[in-house]
Amino acid sequence: MSIVTSSFIPPQRTLMGPGPSDVDPRILTALAQPTIGHLDPLFVDLMDNTKKLLQFAFQTNNALTMPVSAPGSAGMEAVFVNLVEPGDKVIVCQNGVFGGRMQQNVERCGGQAIMVQDDWGCATDIHKLEETLKKHPDAKAVAFVHAETSTGVRNDAKALCALAKKYGCLTIVDAVTSLGGIELAVDEWQIDAIYSGTQKCLSCVPGLSPVSFSQTAIEVIKKRQSAVQSWFLDMDLVMGYWGQGTKRAYHHTAPVNSIYALHEALLILHAEGLQAAWQRHADKHQLLKVGLENLGLEFVVKQQDRLPQLNMVRIPDGVDDALVRQRLLNEFNLEIGAGLGVLAGKVWRIGLMGYGANTKNVDYCINALSQVLVKS
Amino acid sequence: MSIVTSSFIPPQRTLMGPGPSDVDPRILTALAQPTIGHLDPLFVDLMDNTKKLLQFAFQTNNALTMPVSAPGSAGMEAVFVNLVEPGDKVIVCQNGVFGGRMQQNVERCGGQAIMVQDDWGCATDIHKLEETLKKHPDAKAVAFVHAETSTGVRNDAKALCALAKKYGCLTIVDAVTSLGGIELAVDEWQIDAIYSGTQKCLSCVPGLSPVSFSQTAIEVIKKRQSAVQSWFLDMDLVMGYWGQGTKRAYHHTAPVNSIYALHEALLILHAEGLQAAWQRHADKHQLLKVGLENLGLEFVVKQQDRLPQLNMVRIPDGVDDALVRQRLLNEFNLEIGAGLGVLAGKVWRIGLMGYGANTKNVDYCINALSQVLVKS
Repeated sequence: MSIVTSSFIPPQRTLMGPGPSDVDPRILTALAQPTIGHLDPLFVDLMDNTKKLLQFAFQTNNALTMPVSAPGSAGMEAVFVNLVEPGDKVIVCQNGVFGGRMQQNVERCGGQAIMVQDDWGCATDIHKLEETLKKHPDAKAVAFVHAETSTGVRNDAKALCALAKKYGCLTIVDAVTSLGGIELAVDEWQIDAIYSGTQKCLSCVPGLSPVSFSQTAIEVIKKRQSAVQSWFLDMDLVMGYWGQGTKRAYHHTAPVNSIYALHEALLILHAEGLQAAWQRHADKHQLLKVGLENLGLEFVVKQQDRLPQLNMVRIPDGVDDALVRQRLLNEFNLEIGAGLGVLAGKVWRIGLMGYGANTKNVDYCINALSQVLVKS
Repeated sequence: MSIVTSSFIPPQRTLMGPGPSDVDPRILTALAQPTIGHLDPLFVDLMDNTKKLLQFAFQTNNALTMPVSAPGSAGMEAVFVNLVEPGDKVIVCQNGVFGGRMQQNVERCGGQAIMVQDDWGCATDIHKLEETLKKHPDAKAVAFVHAETSTGVRNDAKALCALAKKYGCLTIVDAVTSLGGIELAVDEWQIDAIYSGTQKCLSCVPGLSPVSFSQTAIEVIKKRQSAVQSWFLDMDLVMGYWGQGTKRAYHHTAPVNSIYALHEALLILHAEGLQAAWQRHADKHQLLKVGLENLGLEFVVKQQDRLPQLNMVRIPDGVDDALVRQRLLNEFNLEIGAGLGVLAGKVWRIGLMGYGANTKNVDYCINALSQVLVKS
């Protein structure tokens, strides 16, 4: 196959899958501003303001709060490679795809992952976690996913962290799909290390991973016996670049334009306010729920454990999963998500994230689904 | 300090430092196109065409050719974590900052880095490399930097690779600043693993790292005894996503808009042609050289080892380094680069990369320098 030599002009999709979500046009405009140097004093100021806005979004005073220059999976890896040393025991709660990825990370750091398993679509059982904590008093950390993108389940981050702390463990939280969409309070909940993504409820383009580390986590990093196995993600080095003051040590070239976009996304969240953003996600979820149920579609996750921003419904018997998604994409320019892992072919995942959590998207999705389901 | 709540509007700089370089407006336009899903069939097609364009730019048929979703330092790490296992010996040629970073990478993989040192500003001495190869017949790979961004030196990649191959070693090449600016022929030169960056001679925004692995390198990866220590950079997993065919395994969310930009940058290079792009860099370098020498500025690197895209000149006695760069930035919106490491305060680095390698930039830079040097 030969090279296509024409520019790529994408269609205007409505993105209601598990992410990326619809990007606010303001953010695309910010993204396309002229590139400046990554050591330009104006860029250094922008980095500082981005850090402050991330502290606001995470609800933390952690000094070590910044975007990793790579997607959420690299943010996850940044947390694990800095905190886990060979031989460390980490309790990982899994009830979907991303808990499994945490296990991979622990093991690739030479650590031992003690798994707390719950069914996909159910919340992590806090009693199981407590039993595991009792059995492994030498565990260094407890890790779990706040908003499981693969199932639409909300794990009770506040309660899980409180329990982990009671047993003297570090707390590691995946907030890729939760940040900006549901309540999250890093300092109040005693989260020691957290990572997120830009392409979910921040409605920014994909490619960066905001992270934050508590003072406790920093002390653990400082006392490491072994070097961090990743040079790119070594927080000691990264902080020389993202640290305080005007003197920055060159580490890598920051993705300048992506930072413009993240900054703009965080300004939008700041202007709306966290409470208002969380409420909007809850409200639009209610609207979508009514619409989906009117179409006869059933939610998989129990009501109290559902994420407003990721709605997982069972595919009705006799309906062709791939055909429906293909028709939505081709006839309506509408993307919804397929099932992942054990849920592939059994569910759809409908996202209501950030800018995309609005009445117009809800109505459009319900309308499109009603037409495609009748005819498919 | 409180949060600044206004949007960030960067000035229009002229970027003539070590990168990022001036971005072609066509690329910024591509960057700001509407985001589509990372598993959208149209995006999968775009990924395929991007791979083909990268094969063209690298002059390779390597199937494993793709952009890593993170900056050049992550591309470097992708190469080392996949190829180096604990105990492996890697010969690293260092004559600047980036050779030292390679050493760090080898050691963090548990490997042993055998260093071939040359002075910063001089090319790697091929005789030293041969002596080292003779002393270490068990070395697995030879690694070096093609275009040392920290000094403006071109290492003779073709000759160094030929020698490494004669001794049965894998060849690992840093092409961050060379790709698109000077001759580079991955297959002809028998390069087994190579990484580059988007923000140098491709004139794209920073944030991605094109990489390519030969069939020999893939065989080495397949025969690994230990798991790759990075989940995010594990080529086995990444290839499931960037691989052939329409069936892609989800690995991470690709930075969709950054791929739009890279695709456009590669289309521009393809339309100009590699030979023409290399010649343009050489021609503009000649023009700049005459201008700089007329101002009494001296090059540090010997003529035959100079990179056209990165011009390192000595700061004249009595001239205030920081003040000159500050005045260029503030009065002319012109960025040139400072010295790195042992060369800090002693040299300037003037970039002529990609879109920025044009007569207008050369004239502007010479004019600005002539005004600032007279008055400083």
